[in-house]
Amino acid sequence: MTSTETLVLDEERRGRAALTALVEPGDDRVRLAAERVGAADLVRRIASQREDSQRMDPFDLADRLLEKAAKVGARLAIPGDAEWPEASLFGLARLAARRQALVASGSSVSTIERSVAPPVALWLRGPLRLADTVRQSVAVVGSRAASGYGSHVTAELSYGLAIRDWTVVSGGAYGIDGSAHRGALAADGQTVAVLACGVDVPYPPGHAGLFDQIAHSGLLVSEWPPGTTPRRPRFLVRNRVIAALTAGTVVVEAGARSGARATARRATELGRVVMAVPGPVNSGTSVGCHQLLRSGLAILVTRAEEVLEEVGRIGADLADLPRAPDGWRDRLDEVSAAVVEAMPAMDWVSASTLCEAISFPADQVTTALAGLVEAARLHRDADRYRLAAGARTTPTSARPSIR
Amino acid sequence: MTSTETLVLDEERRGRAALTALVEPGDDRVRLAAERVGAADLVRRIASQREDSQRMDPFDLADRLLEKAAKVGARLAIPGDAEWPEASLFGLARLAARRQALVASGSSVSTIERSVAPPVALWLRGPLRLADTVRQSVAVVGSRAASGYGSHVTAELSYGLAIRDWTVVSGGAYGIDGSAHRGALAADGQTVAVLACGVDVPYPPGHAGLFDQIAHSGLLVSEWPPGTTPRRPRFLVRNRVIAALTAGTVVVEAGARSGARATARRATELGRVVMAVPGPVNSGTSVGCHQLLRSGLAILVTRAEEVLEEVGRIGADLADLPRAPDGWRDRLDEVSAAVVEAMPAMDWVSASTLCEAISFPADQVTTALAGLVEAARLHRDADRYRLAAGARTTPTSARPSIR
Repeated sequence: MTSTETLVLDEERRGRAALTALVEPGDDRVRLAAERVGAADLVRRIASQREDSQRMDPFDLADRLLEKAAKVGARLAIPGDAEWPEASLFGLARLAARRQALVASGSSVSTIERSVAPPVALWLRGPLRLADTVRQSVAVVGSRAASGYGSHVTAELSYGLAIRDWTVVSGGAYGIDGSAHRGALAADGQTVAVLACGVDVPYPPGHAGLFDQIAHSGLLVSEWPPGTTPRRPRFLVRNRVIAALTAGTVVVEAGARSGARATARRATELGRVVMAVPGPVNSGTSVGCHQLLRSGLAILVTRAEEVLEEVGRIGADLADLPRAPDGWRDRLDEVSAAVVEAMPAMDWVSASTLCEAISFPADQVTTALAGLVEAARLHRDADRYRLAAGARTTPTSARPSIR
Repeated sequence: MTSTETLVLDEERRGRAALTALVEPGDDRVRLAAERVGAADLVRRIASQREDSQRMDPFDLADRLLEKAAKVGARLAIPGDAEWPEASLFGLARLAARRQALVASGSSVSTIERSVAPPVALWLRGPLRLADTVRQSVAVVGSRAASGYGSHVTAELSYGLAIRDWTVVSGGAYGIDGSAHRGALAADGQTVAVLACGVDVPYPPGHAGLFDQIAHSGLLVSEWPPGTTPRRPRFLVRNRVIAALTAGTVVVEAGARSGARATARRATELGRVVMAVPGPVNSGTSVGCHQLLRSGLAILVTRAEEVLEEVGRIGADLADLPRAPDGWRDRLDEVSAAVVEAMPAMDWVSASTLCEAISFPADQVTTALAGLVEAARLHRDADRYRLAAGARTTPTSARPSIR
């Protein structure tokens, strides 16, 4: 590579860094202009159009941002980088191209159409490589005002996805989002928080500790440069990135006035699977989910296996999923396999509850339970059972079936 | 009418009465034979084929049954009677005819196909006329081992259907069935229990009082003559009558091994709408409902209005629904109407819960609540509200929309 080429690449990276601070994300005209003239030229033009009093050197700005990022352990990813999730964002790029064709033919650009724009760059913080991490990922999102039920179900679901090597992506908010990240972390799994503020900004403040954990073993992602504080419209803009990075979105709880409907439509437009978890019909926090299910915008799911059944169809398109060699679960007889499938990820459960959940006679379930205890796959305490720690690791049989 | 004609009609009625005791219901060959040769001839033939020791006069048997029925306040309905639900059972008759054509062409008759046979007669107990009562009816059924959640939701749902002049049909069992009947009775509405035993037999025993109430204001229905005790296979045979009499079936709770799937398939085959109420995904009693919803066999419903939205499409086919003149509900402004719709049938609810359930700003909801309290449509107690008794009667606006 000549030094000129290195300089151009460096200018492109610095240009895109500056763009994330100079222009609000979500406008595809910016991305297209950056591709046409190069990000460096684009930021020079943008800077020159500013009032004299606000004028600065965009490359100085970029250097300050990159320096600040380095200080907080963050980095910038741009198109062309090894970890840029080109495959995941392909849906976005295709939609943007379709919109562009419409614009060229004289159609007007609605706000919604504009908001399918791929990011021009992403700020990242954490040890995971973005592209690899989201190649097999599901978004788990929902209400900030989650019920105890919603928090519990979310944690179980995310735990179940994570132990099957699927990455749990969410928005880092209080409520369902927080439970989603924590469930994945509890399984020593991969989790990604896509934020509407800088990857070094602890918002919401109560999640400062959670973000530190994610920065340590997962990945914090943002379109805004380090130090950026959240503003209300940014959450909606951010949501398109969550949808685009993942094979599908699970809404666990959502109130009647939530953005669940808009999120579902967006994800569907992007060719992603939308799923919703039902709940008590007299619970306000499940109203949005039931509306999604009634309107046919979402598929009903109750546990991780069902989520993977749905995204497996998409996952097979996005990437060739390597199939691990058969594990102990694959060698179980039919009844024992059903028992293990029905076991909650972490809780104790009684034999009678298990019998109720499984379509096999009670005596066969009892025999299977005894066998699993003897094989040290289950712990037993009087009439209660739970999965042994070793029995929780990556059940290969539960990888998405490719149909 | 000549005396010979009266005699023939009388013989037909006595023949069908005897048939209900001599042959187990659910076999359409019996119904077809009765139509071809007349029920009187048919029972004579059946009686003559018996062993000498078991032989009796079928008309003596019929008279004893009719006498016993009269003593317990029951009556027999046969095809041709004013209250025979010909329209409701049309689906059954059509299916039976189709099956007959298949049999004639040499196809084998599966058990399932055989069990779509219309009844040859029905024993009735209660003041309601069967045909009128089921013309606008919905079945609400589910698990005997209902949860507190299921019982509560069922009662609210049935109450909501009953106050809108829809008849609630169920099977009289413990659990969901019992709550369905009680919810309708609490609304002074119409309810029908279709039993797998005689209409004078208190089974299950704990529902003796409930059956007395239904016999007093509703209708007990059975294909078996008075005095018949229930046997396990009879419940399945009975289920086809529940499906056939109603425009749709709502399954509120069902375990994994329940007959919900078979019930749903049967009702679908009969051209009936199948609906299911979701619940907590970690509740064993909702597993069957979630399976129905995931497999697409049922439509998700959360309250009476949604049930009527679905059966309305069928109801419009079955009968021309008279539209009552506009009531006070129809004259409410948009926000107040939403508040009244969102109010539970009988419970108190807080303003904050209401706000969460309604897609209007909190201050508009507060204003609407104040107006409704002033108009005596709602009672207020500190921050809690409930519908006034007068506000619960037949909201005409909630009649099924015909699309």
